[in-house]
Amino acid sequence: MIRFALFGAGRIGIMHAANIAAHAEAQLTNVYDVHQPSAAKVVAAYGGRVTDTVAATLEGVDAVLIASSTPTHVDLMVASAAAGKAILCEKPIDLDIERVNGARTALADSGVPIQLAFNRRYDPSHRAVHDAIVAGEIGQLEQVVITSRDTGLAPRAYIEVSGGIYRDMMIHDFDLARFLLDGDEVEEVFAIGSVRVDQMLTEFGDVDTAMVVMRSAKGTLVHINNSRRSVYGHDQRVEVLGSNGMLQADHPRSNAMVRYNRDATTARGLLPFSFIERFAQAYVDELDEFIQMVKGKKSPTVTYEDGRRALLLANAATASFRTKQPVAVSYA
Amino acid sequence: MIRFALFGAGRIGIMHAANIAAHAEAQLTNVYDVHQPSAAKVVAAYGGRVTDTVAATLEGVDAVLIASSTPTHVDLMVASAAAGKAILCEKPIDLDIERVNGARTALADSGVPIQLAFNRRYDPSHRAVHDAIVAGEIGQLEQVVITSRDTGLAPRAYIEVSGGIYRDMMIHDFDLARFLLDGDEVEEVFAIGSVRVDQMLTEFGDVDTAMVVMRSAKGTLVHINNSRRSVYGHDQRVEVLGSNGMLQADHPRSNAMVRYNRDATTARGLLPFSFIERFAQAYVDELDEFIQMVKGKKSPTVTYEDGRRALLLANAATASFRTKQPVAVSYA
Amino acid sequence: MIRFALFGAGRIGIMHAANIAAHAEAQLTNVYDVHQPSAAKVVAAYGGRVTDTVAATLEGVDAVLIASSTPTHVDLMVASAAAGKAILCEKPIDLDIERVNGARTALADSGVPIQLAFNRRYDPSHRAVHDAIVAGEIGQLEQVVITSRDTGLAPRAYIEVSGGIYRDMMIHDFDLARFLLDGDEVEEVFAIGSVRVDQMLTEFGDVDTAMVVMRSAKGTLVHINNSRRSVYGHDQRVEVLGSNGMLQADHPRSNAMVRYNRDATTARGLLPFSFIERFAQAYVDELDEFIQMVKGKKSPTVTYEDGRRALLLANAATASFRTKQPVAVSYA
Amino acid sequence: MIRFALFGAGRIGIMHAANIAAHAEAQLTNVYDVHQPSAAKVVAAYGGRVTDTVAATLEGVDAVLIASSTPTHVDLMVASAAAGKAILCEKPIDLDIERVNGARTALADSGVPIQLAFNRRYDPSHRAVHDAIVAGEIGQLEQVVITSRDTGLAPRAYIEVSGGIYRDMMIHDFDLARFLLDGDEVEEVFAIGSVRVDQMLTEFGDVDTAMVVMRSAKGTLVHINNSRRSVYGHDQRVEVLGSNGMLQADHPRSNAMVRYNRDATTARGLLPFSFIERFAQAYVDELDEFIQMVKGKKSPTVTYEDGRRALLLANAATASFRTKQPVAVSYA
Repeated sequence: MIRFALFGAGRIGIMHAANIAAHAEAQLTNVYDVHQPSAAKVVAAYGGRVTDTVAATLEGVDAVLIASSTPTHVDLMVASAAAGKAILCEKPIDLDIERVNGARTALADSGVPIQLAFNRRYDPSHRAVHDAIVAGEIGQLEQVVITSRDTGLAPRAYIEVSGGIYRDMMIHDFDLARFLLDGDEVEEVFAIGSVRVDQMLTEFGDVDTAMVVMRSAKGTLVHINNSRRSVYGHDQRVEVLGSNGMLQADHPRSNAMVRYNRDATTARGLLPFSFIERFAQAYVDELDEFIQMVKGKKSPTVTYEDGRRALLLANAATASFRTKQPVAVSYA
Repeated sequence: MIRFALFGAGRIGIMHAANIAAHAEAQLTNVYDVHQPSAAKVVAAYGGRVTDTVAATLEGVDAVLIASSTPTHVDLMVASAAAGKAILCEKPIDLDIERVNGARTALADSGVPIQLAFNRRYDPSHRAVHDAIVAGEIGQLEQVVITSRDTGLAPRAYIEVSGGIYRDMMIHDFDLARFLLDGDEVEEVFAIGSVRVDQMLTEFGDVDTAMVVMRSAKGTLVHINNSRRSVYGHDQRVEVLGSNGMLQADHPRSNAMVRYNRDATTARGLLPFSFIERFAQAYVDELDEFIQMVKGKKSPTVTYEDGRRALLLANAATASFRTKQPVAVSYA
Repeated sequence: MIRFALFGAGRIGIMHAANIAAHAEAQLTNVYDVHQPSAAKVVAAYGGRVTDTVAATLEGVDAVLIASSTPTHVDLMVASAAAGKAILCEKPIDLDIERVNGARTALADSGVPIQLAFNRRYDPSHRAVHDAIVAGEIGQLEQVVITSRDTGLAPRAYIEVSGGIYRDMMIHDFDLARFLLDGDEVEEVFAIGSVRVDQMLTEFGDVDTAMVVMRSAKGTLVHINNSRRSVYGHDQRVEVLGSNGMLQADHPRSNAMVRYNRDATTARGLLPFSFIERFAQAYVDELDEFIQMVKGKKSPTVTYEDGRRALLLANAATASFRTKQPVAVSYA
Repeated sequence: MIRFALFGAGRIGIMHAANIAAHAEAQLTNVYDVHQPSAAKVVAAYGGRVTDTVAATLEGVDAVLIASSTPTHVDLMVASAAAGKAILCEKPIDLDIERVNGARTALADSGVPIQLAFNRRYDPSHRAVHDAIVAGEIGQLEQVVITSRDTGLAPRAYIEVSGGIYRDMMIHDFDLARFLLDGDEVEEVFAIGSVRVDQMLTEFGDVDTAMVVMRSAKGTLVHINNSRRSVYGHDQRVEVLGSNGMLQADHPRSNAMVRYNRDATTARGLLPFSFIERFAQAYVDELDEFIQMVKGKKSPTVTYEDGRRALLLANAATASFRTKQPVAVSYA
């Protein structure tokens, strides 16, 4: 039984707590949140106890799940590693690449297993596409097209510190692109964007509608499009073209009902509006893989270095958007 | 250039006239209708001349297309055959099997090419399914499921003389079933029906909602369902199960636009409401095959005997519905 | 925490044991199987203790899950009810309607909650179709078409005592039809069948390919087709036509990957081959509903009477197949 | 009856000749090709006479269809306009923007109706998407994603003079993007490309795999991807996102057969491999619109200026690819 400390009892933290409680090999032991009543709610629902310091939270557990606000991630990872705890940390590691680079050695030296929570790598459809590529099913990979459209903007306060759409939202797609490219790293990024949904974003130099094209070392071309608005639900898809065919990861569905009526035929219901619902299975599989890793049965699918590289791509896209120039990416 | 006489300038006749006019190897020469202004309209649009007797209509043509009312079919076929004209006749041959049997010998002896206009055999999707079955793609055929739902009832005057849903509407499905069974004839028919759309049908002992199950000589089972009401358009599909797989002939579409909005996802437009639009390509291919047959390049896909056997099945279904008993089918 | 006794540690019993163990409000307490090593395996994996008498199995539990062989169901239900235990019993109640009728009063008088395990009512897609019908979305229900094709025959020993395809396999579809008809009972059944997969069945007067048509009191027509062979996986679908539209419960999928290659486009993977995988979510939801019922929060979706009526329909279909006559159904 | 002169009896010319012959209001009168036997073949199949000078070809016709090699387009348009003939000209006008600009005034002054043959505007699915956008169905347009993948490279001799992938192939997509943007012109283009299919292209500085992102005046973002290799057929699709939903123009199909077998489910056949087959209906509708325009009943959907602007975008993309910089587009 793997005992978990949970940092952060917000929306994502609650979801992780539920998954820990439901996992046969895991239990929720300590829960920490700067807002203690939030932690207390999680404990009431999923067990464990509320703790009031980081040190106390790290006591008596095998692993930590970090779902607190982004600026706390690095310090919590370092403290957890120092205490010898396995780490599952929400994305991004940090918005500041210097801080990410700074913690690298200490974390690597600690030897604790670390997994970054890029949920999309665990989505059954994306994973099926990845596995088919790696198995050679479509031959040489030539194009990757990723679509991610969220159902609405986060509140102004969140947007203000989010780091902008490329670092806050598209970072998922950068990681997914790297997952699909399977080691063939992106060398160049060009980004455009515009404000189409909410003019508030102009205050922060941010955009709500964004597109990127990238080229990998081997010459595979990648396109990502993002929008903060999708009235039909959370739209997150992938398409890859290779010398022997195309694969798509289309929308999974909670049921298979199809409608024919006076308005439409072959109509299905809306997509889930929350990413938590959209990636429900992915979050379960992600946690399970982490637990297998803690038990020494698996190596992690998403490493600290993966988190760092996704941020490098997001930074490159942000710079490209601002300078209106393509940006070469260095992973050093 | 094959010169055509057209009998019948109603809705189906007009459609056939347009197809004749559009065919590079055909021309409309004579047009006959008991209501002369209808014939005149067709001539104005698609060429030829209006004729006022059967004899005059048969003069100077190579082939006849019979699209007049059902009770006239047999006499027109016999007259056309006597005049040595190739015949393309709308379904059904007649509602009275005695009349159908009566004309058999004379028509066969005449030696003229005769083709029955069961349009569904020419639908590209149904034909693809048929061809795949015949090619052995799904191994031994085991089940056939045919769905046919029309968008509304014909007027009362038509219904009254239609012969009932099994002979008027399901006769198409009986022929399609025979096409797919590829020589393995149906031996037994059981039919049920009910009035769900329009109580007017009870006056004629007719129904608007009907289902049939049938068994072929080899033991393949066939189901057909019919409805006189479909709010989403003309719904006509086929599914076949074999020892090596399943094939479906789904709905063809006039365009490939798909919608995602606040009400639905993967939504497509309604199906065509008229069978003429639904089977537009089938009618073109049917005429082309007939023309190739007249030119001696092809043998007919749908013979007089096919028309007779479809009627025998429709009669069996009608009898089964009335007697509430399964009915054995004899093709003698 | 609801404590469960499990009768039967075969394939279905194991699956139920896993679901009990995974449910936050349930625990596996006692496990009984005539073959004790099977019970011991389940206990090793999911907890509880092995018991060696029915009486011992009923001790210290709140509820029983009966997944033993069909002939034991009625006695176990009666014993469990006498002991005041809530009952979740696998289908069918029994193959002998006399035994089913015989236990009716005793079970009803006991007052214990009883739920029959017709898993299809819990399938998210079938349930969505049912709910849409009940909500009036497609107006007056007019046709129901149910397709169920299994991936292969059970072993000869099972087939011999299975009661035949209508009682063993199609009984699920009869229950599903009743679920969708929502109180409008079937009045008449006509069944045909043939042996297309395995001639062994002829020894038992059984078939592997079967079709039924039925008519409800209000005149809704129902078709069911069954096959013991489907090379593309477990094929279980529903289609309903109403005055305002059509609904289909198509195949759910474990992922949303779509392939385009040299052989095909829009290709997806095979369907799950086992019904346990096909109805995995249904089994989870079924158990959860039962637990809510035991806790007094819900009334059962599938009652003993539902199990009895499904058997009456299966018996009617069997009689129809044997007599080659339509059979009227009485529910007295 | 509109009498046509056809310039160019190659693959596209033959297709146009067939469509002219099949159109009820058109006839093929003169056919010119530098390779006379090619012209003779077209005449043998579709009527008219072979001509041996441009002047002779322009005699006795109402309209010209220019399907000769690209470098001849401008001169033939100018000569045809001078002779007062209506013009339907294949894309592109020319690869040299100076020549395109040079002929502008003369052609405009001539007053003859001119239509550029960008076939995609006539594809029923693309048109349906365009019409829905213009009707406001998805609100404010925000993203356009166009996919075009051809089934193989043209011969080396063709590639050498093709102008490169952006001008030869993607020019269709630039025009389609402009069609969908409905007057909101593209202001900036960024292009990347790589050689993944055939190294021969490196000799010409050309690529076979290409991606572009563009931004319109209003801030709509556009992505186009192109490949010279698609093993599953000619893949040409569109997706547009707006504030009220998404529309896709998916692949049209020649039949609606769907397969389920041991390898796959929901599998359909390959897409057509030739663009002539893929856009068969578009070519018919394009010709029909031109004929209606010649008869004064319609204004053209695709003007000379549209051809010029598509070339400006293709030139911008080519420059962007070569300079690795985004390129601003001026339409002056």
